[in-house]
Amino acid sequence: MPTGPAPVLPRVRGPQDLRVLGPDELRRLAEEVRVHLVESVARTGGHLGPNLGVVELTIAVHRVFDSPSDTVVFDTGHQSYVHKLLTGRQDLSTLRTRGGVAGYPSRAESDHDVVENSHASTSLSWADGIARGRALTGEPGRLTVAVVGDGALTGGMAWEALNNIAAAQDRPLVIVVNDNERSYAPTIGGLAHHLSTLRATRGYERFLGWGKQALRRGGTPGRLAYDTLHGVKKGLKDIVAPQGMFEDLGLKYLGPVDGHDLEALERALAAAKDFGGPVIVHALTNKGQGYAPALADAADQFHAVGVIDPVTGAPVPAGGAPKRASWTSVFADEVLEVARERDDVVGVTAAMLIPVGLHKMAEAMPDRVVDVGIAEQHATTSAAGMAFTGLHPVVALYATFLNRAFDQVLLDVALHRAGVTFVLDRAGITGPDGPSHHGMWDMALLQHVPGLRLAAPRDGATLREELREAVAVDDAPTVVRFPKGSAPEDVPALERLGGPQAWGAPDLLARSGARRGGGGADVLVVAVGALAALGLDVGRRLDAQGVSSTVVDPRWVLPVHPALLEACAAHRLVVVVEDGLRTGGVGSRLRDELADAGVRVDVRCVGVPVAFVDHAERAQVLEELGITAQDVARDVLERVAALDGDAGAGAGPAEQVRSQG
Amino acid sequence: MPTGPAPVLPRVRGPQDLRVLGPDELRRLAEEVRVHLVESVARTGGHLGPNLGVVELTIAVHRVFDSPSDTVVFDTGHQSYVHKLLTGRQDLSTLRTRGGVAGYPSRAESDHDVVENSHASTSLSWADGIARGRALTGEPGRLTVAVVGDGALTGGMAWEALNNIAAAQDRPLVIVVNDNERSYAPTIGGLAHHLSTLRATRGYERFLGWGKQALRRGGTPGRLAYDTLHGVKKGLKDIVAPQGMFEDLGLKYLGPVDGHDLEALERALAAAKDFGGPVIVHALTNKGQGYAPALADAADQFHAVGVIDPVTGAPVPAGGAPKRASWTSVFADEVLEVARERDDVVGVTAAMLIPVGLHKMAEAMPDRVVDVGIAEQHATTSAAGMAFTGLHPVVALYATFLNRAFDQVLLDVALHRAGVTFVLDRAGITGPDGPSHHGMWDMALLQHVPGLRLAAPRDGATLREELREAVAVDDAPTVVRFPKGSAPEDVPALERLGGPQAWGAPDLLARSGARRGGGGADVLVVAVGALAALGLDVGRRLDAQGVSSTVVDPRWVLPVHPALLEACAAHRLVVVVEDGLRTGGVGSRLRDELADAGVRVDVRCVGVPVAFVDHAERAQVLEELGITAQDVARDVLERVAALDGDAGAGAGPAEQVRSQG
Repeated sequence: MPTGPAPVLPRVRGPQDLRVLGPDELRRLAEEVRVHLVESVARTGGHLGPNLGVVELTIAVHRVFDSPSDTVVFDTGHQSYVHKLLTGRQDLSTLRTRGGVAGYPSRAESDHDVVENSHASTSLSWADGIARGRALTGEPGRLTVAVVGDGALTGGMAWEALNNIAAAQDRPLVIVVNDNERSYAPTIGGLAHHLSTLRATRGYERFLGWGKQALRRGGTPGRLAYDTLHGVKKGLKDIVAPQGMFEDLGLKYLGPVDGHDLEALERALAAAKDFGGPVIVHALTNKGQGYAPALADAADQFHAVGVIDPVTGAPVPAGGAPKRASWTSVFADEVLEVARERDDVVGVTAAMLIPVGLHKMAEAMPDRVVDVGIAEQHATTSAAGMAFTGLHPVVALYATFLNRAFDQVLLDVALHRAGVTFVLDRAGITGPDGPSHHGMWDMALLQHVPGLRLAAPRDGATLREELREAVAVDDAPTVVRFPKGSAPEDVPALERLGGPQAWGAPDLLARSGARRGGGGADVLVVAVGALAALGLDVGRRLDAQGVSSTVVDPRWVLPVHPALLEACAAHRLVVVVEDGLRTGGVGSRLRDELADAGVRVDVRCVGVPVAFVDHAERAQVLEELGITAQDVARDVLERVAALDGDAGAGAGPAEQVRSQG
Repeated sequence: MPTGPAPVLPRVRGPQDLRVLGPDELRRLAEEVRVHLVESVARTGGHLGPNLGVVELTIAVHRVFDSPSDTVVFDTGHQSYVHKLLTGRQDLSTLRTRGGVAGYPSRAESDHDVVENSHASTSLSWADGIARGRALTGEPGRLTVAVVGDGALTGGMAWEALNNIAAAQDRPLVIVVNDNERSYAPTIGGLAHHLSTLRATRGYERFLGWGKQALRRGGTPGRLAYDTLHGVKKGLKDIVAPQGMFEDLGLKYLGPVDGHDLEALERALAAAKDFGGPVIVHALTNKGQGYAPALADAADQFHAVGVIDPVTGAPVPAGGAPKRASWTSVFADEVLEVARERDDVVGVTAAMLIPVGLHKMAEAMPDRVVDVGIAEQHATTSAAGMAFTGLHPVVALYATFLNRAFDQVLLDVALHRAGVTFVLDRAGITGPDGPSHHGMWDMALLQHVPGLRLAAPRDGATLREELREAVAVDDAPTVVRFPKGSAPEDVPALERLGGPQAWGAPDLLARSGARRGGGGADVLVVAVGALAALGLDVGRRLDAQGVSSTVVDPRWVLPVHPALLEACAAHRLVVVVEDGLRTGGVGSRLRDELADAGVRVDVRCVGVPVAFVDHAERAQVLEELGITAQDVARDVLERVAALDGDAGAGAGPAEQVRSQG
């Protein structure tokens, strides 16, 4: 058997091993990393395209800087797989699985991992804080490097940080802009235009030959070298390196550099390292580089994939029944339908056109869908502005990212009674993306917004229905939230409760037996949104144990409908099942409203604790949290038994407190 | 009696009346507006400096644009007094008082008011949304004008908006940058540096004479006029008007213009109006212009004043007892003391150095206090970065502004277990600044952050104590929050409850009588923070009616201390009094924790409803909301009577549910 040279990757146990490799070994290493990434991620799923794009960049960063003494911060940590491979984590076979390697940096995994966050645009603030801290703690020699995508620079936090970084000219800090002209979708706006101007010029590379010679001649390190590299100030500047807005802000700019040319990258990073102040290194990369199926995918260059065939890149179909339509696709079809019927409906996305399902509407009516970049605050407030002109914006976001725009939802939308509909995808427990991607805060957070109405559809049919109810509200924020994945089979309602107050009334899903002591049923199961099937399962289990139950879907969890309070009052025990925070969520709110109404009934809240929840499959997480029919039914049966023990003979259902304050 | 010319201001009932005035009348109008502002605000208090700075600017905007057909959006609406005077609201004698003229724009007051918000950096997003809306609804001729301070441009939202505005070159939108080199404090960072470069050049004004002639010759409107005004593209550009980063982004730049030269302002605004795309007009103004006492005040140019002597600008002392030290000043002294003892403590402010009380520390140790500009997100995340290097940042903000950084508190600080202390001033009901300045969301919002600890001191002594307890925590976010105004007389504790678990234990403030049925007391009054005195008053009122009570201050409302739950269990009724949201706040949380612990006791929550609360004095607002000792005592007495009616003979205090799930 012919044997090629020994593979390089297995020898790299940490960044120090990179520094002894020669050019040929480094080229082979990059190739091996790509092969390894494709093979591994094809089996586990994960963020493939972004990592294929930063192979050389990550190698260069770890050769030039000395992590963990120097600190490397990755913006949106899904671009950290290569970093993981080079810092002792070569086995990615457990990627994003329970107990396995996280899909984002993780301090528990490695000292080389610092920022675990997967929300974009934070890295420059982290880096500024770390650099300032190093200066104050007397360790200014420990450098700080932020690796940030061009897309993430459209987020407001990045601007706040750049403004501050520029104010400290003596504090070394290297910002590597990984410019692949897109975050998820192509980067938009004035910044993208400016970066593209910089790209077009490519002045740096033309100049590089001369610069290298000048450096060799002079052998002068640091700022002098930088000045040399950039010619004699102003005069040569525009010819050599267009610096534009970054230099206007006071940030030195190096680039653009070919982000797949290791040697060029290292030269630029080394110059930046020696400069002694804040520097931007502008590297041009291709998402999906080196993997034909990704490069051929115009939509998103394999930004994130499920299990795929490593050769063709084609999705490997899961076994069993054919996959049902996703919540996202149900929304995508319905919002298009609504927009066809109503001229005033417009769509807003924050750099997530396809993932949130606004692409069909955008294709059909491009003027009426706007992508604002990674800018949830602007998405929200500009929607309030559009509502002022008589439009009805539908702002489609991942639930977790709405946390970024709480103040804007509160003061720009709600205070101004703007009719804006937020559609929150990936709400509740999402799974493999870990703590910062679970959309578990939305229902608790939005409790605090006056006038806001929030629906949690239980299936495709109610998603369509509640979306239409939401866009019909023109004087308050409305929210429709649903989880990741396939929408379940439709769960029909027996009847709509509500009586005279029809708007936002709950659905009765099931009713079993009669109360053992006569009168109403024993247990009211309030199943929020996608947990309807679980709620029905709980009802059946209770029934099997001789405990009667009623199962309702509140549909609109805000405002709390009087019919829901009446249903609570007619039962001995209420259990609320939700996939958001159990403290401060829908169940808590119900408890508060019942107390205000003077209804005394025990309310059990089943949901996510106020804690960070690690990555695993959604079903695994729900199971660990006890959000299963079995666990809920067991708990309820114990409570019922306790109530039976407590109760004097013939005590009725929840007592009405006679005197209310 | 000699009579001068008739005053102009009374004749201005709306913007249309401005357009018929001649140059001399306009000059007199500006003078009259300033006199009126000083006389009026001297009596009521309010934002004086900012409004004195925008007199000519506001006149010019309303002469050139046609509000309300054109839309004028003010960033941080406290600069809208002149706008109010010119749009039919000349009587400012009720400014910021209950039922009177709001200190911010108010749609209820006038069609000329659009954005009521007082949080900074939102105007460009509003304007972008409105301009986009006008384009889509077929009213592109209705122009949108945003008036934004240079300080507000340091906020991330402004960047998100600029990036989007630049992407729509065909959509007219005028951004007037009111550059007074400061928001509250001097503007910081790279942007300020860049604006200062633009200011220094003043190329536009030099060029203006020539430009005017060129326009007269050609008579060409719109974009062509703009091009003419700006010379023949690139070649002349750098000589004529340095455009820098704005043009790099794709935004036309006009300026700088003397913001007190009405004629120059109008010329620039007219050119901007005709351009047909997004334009920045850079106007240089002086905060406090025309009023010597304000101009002489280096610290903040009379940004906001109380009642003052209109001639000297000296504060008019309130009658009665000498004013007690403010909460802010107690913090200012203590944080300096702490910082002297601990090298690792650093201070962070978001453009509010003096108002949040970090100025003393900044004077004593300038390297250890950083002002990040109006950038709460960056303040928070860069603090997490500093904590990573071993520092303990104290981030001092107004409570209402923390809403902007919820995601960063959650994912950058809490997820990373960073020891960062947030000090929230102006928490609870603040008063005359209205809906967006009440700091009433903090305690509800922060319930959702895993591991976060939150203290609400009741007086100066506990503020000092709890601040020290907070900065001693190095693995979680801590929050210390207190209201606006004078700290009350210290309220001593009888004892600290808590037993074996000392950290964060509550204080027992008062205990009265014994329970009528024997055993513990009837009512537990949980008085949160500054409402301690109110809680004690409630206790006395109950006592007078023969109802026994215990009054406790939880001190740390998060995490909920077991001793507090025990105290609840030992009473028949719990009443929680707080100046934050009553639904989802401290009382709700207590109710949830009691339910989880299987303790059945009625909890009454007294606090702020989930609604927007108008401007009025803090005491007036609290009274309207029923947060008074009288109201609380009456409610509690009614509940106790109801419980007496409900109770069977000899039922004990709160029952322990026997079987817990």
